Amino acid sequence: MSLSGIPYDDDNVFKKIIAGTVPSYKIFETEHALAFLDAFPMAKGHALLIPKATGYASIMDMPADVAGEVLKELPRLAKHVKDASGCDGVNIVHNSGADAGQVVFHVHFHVLPRWKGDNLVKLGKSGSMIAKDDAEALLKAMGVR
Amino acid sequence: MSLSGIPYDDDNVFKKIIAGTVPSYKIFETEHALAFLDAFPMAKGHALLIPKATGYASIMDMPADVAGEVLKELPRLAKHVKDASGCDGVNIVHNSGADAGQVVFHVHFHVLPRWKGDNLVKLGKSGSMIAKDDAEALLKAMGVR
Repeated sequence: MSLSGIPYDDDNVFKKIIAGTVPSYKIFETEHALAFLDAFPMAKGHALLIPKATGYASIMDMPADVAGEVLKELPRLAKHVKDASGCDGVNIVHNSGADAGQVVFHVHFHVLPRWKGDNLVKLGKSGSMIAKDDAEALLKAMGVR
Repeated sequence: MSLSGIPYDDDNVFKKIIAGTVPSYKIFETEHALAFLDAFPMAKGHALLIPKATGYASIMDMPADVAGEVLKELPRLAKHVKDASGCDGVNIVHNSGADAGQVVFHVHFHVLPRWKGDNLVKLGKSGSMIAKDDAEALLKAMGVR
């Protein structure tokens, strides 16, 4: 089982896009990464960045060097989305796990164009300031204290 | 002006955390990146990853090599958040621009623990399948066709 506990889906559509058996509107690719238009966009210009390496469902399972080689392309892709859509802002969103909204179990990053008032991405509210005891307990559970 | 059109805030709190003039609960740091607990967490275990380099408000303004050196740490941070919180899933969210929800104008990535039904991150709905003409127009506007 993977570190994340999230199994890779060997029949997922992004794997088929990488293999070329399902078509996509490619934006760019490198040795490690593929960027393409989302086929069912939440907004005009919605794009995806994925590793070409298969077997990783979650960001938690990607080796650091692979993550670096893929995610270094986020600035370029975000600029493409902004240039093509004329958006006011950009969100980058990654979902790891069904309870986090993941649907395709090959790691992917959404690049979403945003316009004032579109309500496309809504986050919860910030809480009150973290208490010292709670922070220390979290750091201890992370194994960093 | 930056590539993104989003100006850096020289008085932002993350710059002060990097400088050590504002305290933080540090999770880890590298030559390029700093990970720490969000001081006003949306959920227990909410963490942030930022570049130590200042001057970049938006992901769009980060050079690829800097983005790679920082974002290669996302797998490690996501695992820490999962280990400490016992969450079912993880979202990674980046906001570029006020209309995308950005509040602190030093580039940062949220790592958010998720539990079934918590409604912490809500995305818009996927649309219908993209039309060929629309896709081609977007790729042309990106300068890749």
